[in-house]
Amino acid sequence: MNIMRGIMALCVAGGLAAAAQADHAGKIVYHVSEIEKVGFALGNIRNHINGVGGAEHVEIVLVAHGPALKAFHDTIDANPKIMDRVSALQGAGVRFEACGNTMNAQSVSLDDLMGSFARRDEGGVVRIADLQSQGYLYIRP
Amino acid sequence: MNIMRGIMALCVAGGLAAAAQADHAGKIVYHVSEIEKVGFALGNIRNHINGVGGAEHVEIVLVAHGPALKAFHDTIDANPKIMDRVSALQGAGVRFEACGNTMNAQSVSLDDLMGSFARRDEGGVVRIADLQSQGYLYIRP
Amino acid sequence: MNIMRGIMALCVAGGLAAAAQADHAGKIVYHVSEIEKVGFALGNIRNHINGVGGAEHVEIVLVAHGPALKAFHDTIDANPKIMDRVSALQGAGVRFEACGNTMNAQSVSLDDLMGSFARRDEGGVVRIADLQSQGYLYIRP
Repeated sequence: MNIMRGIMALCVAGGLAAAAQADHAGKIVYHVSEIEKVGFALGNIRNHINGVGGAEHVEIVLVAHGPALKAFHDTIDANPKIMDRVSALQGAGVRFEACGNTMNAQSVSLDDLMGSFARRDEGGVVRIADLQSQGYLYIRP
Repeated sequence: MNIMRGIMALCVAGGLAAAAQADHAGKIVYHVSEIEKVGFALGNIRNHINGVGGAEHVEIVLVAHGPALKAFHDTIDANPKIMDRVSALQGAGVRFEACGNTMNAQSVSLDDLMGSFARRDEGGVVRIADLQSQGYLYIRP
Repeated sequence: MNIMRGIMALCVAGGLAAAAQADHAGKIVYHVSEIEKVGFALGNIRNHINGVGGAEHVEIVLVAHGPALKAFHDTIDANPKIMDRVSALQGAGVRFEACGNTMNAQSVSLDDLMGSFARRDEGGVVRIADLQSQGYLYIRP
C-alpha cells in the first residue's frame, strides 16, 4: 500500500504539472527586433494587459534585439513617448530584456538603456526559445 | 513488484499514446498587423489549405489588428483582389477576426468590414494568446 | 477499477506534460519570408547556435518562402555574405528548406539554390505548422 500511495502521489504531481501547463495563457513573450515596431509593440502590450483585466492576470516578458534595441537607448534625444510607455509597463510588472549580443554590437551597458532592463548573455533568440519551452506563448508584433 | 512495474509501464505507454494523439497540427492562428502584408497573408492561407489537401483538414483563424485592418475596410475603393480572397477563404471556412481596440481606433463597425468578421473585444493580441493556449499553432506572415 | 482508471488518467496527463516540457527546447523552426530579413535571420541562427554552446545542443530548421527565397538563388550576382553564412550554417547542421509553391512561382529548382536545400511540396506554411506540431519552437526574425 505504501508503494501504491507513492505511485498515486507521483501521478497526482504529474497531473498538477499538466494542469499548470494547460493554464499558460497568462505567460507571454513579446519579440521585437525592428526599431520602427517598438512603439506599436509597447501599445500591444498595454492593450494585452487591459484586455485580460489587469497586470495581475498576465506575465509578460519583452525580448528586444537587433535594431529595436536602439529605441530603448536612454539618450538625450530618446523618444519621450517610448520612455513613458516603458516606464508605465515596467511599473505594471512587464519585464524588459535585452540581447547581450546586440548590447555588445551597439556598445551599450544596462545603464545606457531606459528604466530597468535585464541583460541576456545567451542572446535574445535563445532566450525567446527558452521562455517558450517554459510555457510562454509567443507574440511577434 | 511485477504488477507494480506493469502498472507503471502501462502508464508510461498511455502517456506516449496520448502525446502521439494530441496532434494539433490542424489548428492555426494567422496573425497580421501590417497593411502591406495582408495580400501575402491571404495567399499563405490559401496555400495552407491547398497544402493540407483541403479546408476540411485544417481550422484557420486570421486575427487582424493595427494598420492591417484597413485593408479589410469595405469601402468603394477597396482592393478587389483582397475582397475576392476574403470571400473565397471565408467560403472555405477560414474565420476572420478583428481587434476591438483597432476597430475603435479606426472608427469602424463590423458592417464596415468585408464579408463576415468577428469582433474581439478583448483585443487582437489577447485573442492570439488565447487561441495558442487552446492548441492553435502560430504563424506570422 | 475506478481508482485504477483514475491513476491511469493522471499518469497520461503527467506523461503529456513531461512530453511537452522535455523535448522541445532544442528544436527550433526559423521562418523567413522577407528578402531584406535574410541576412539578419542567418545572423540570428548563428547567434542561436553560439548561445546554446554549439550546434550539438540544438536542431534548427530554416523555412524560407515568398520573396526571401530570392536571396538564396545561386546566381552570379548572389550576395557573397549570404553564401558564406549559408555554407557555415549548413556545415553546422542547420537544415534549409524551401517552399515548393515559391519555387514554382520563382521558376527555380533545387540546383538553382545555394548549398543544399530541401524542397517542401506541401508549402512553407504547412511545413512550419507541421514542425511546430512536432515540438519545434517558432522564431520569426
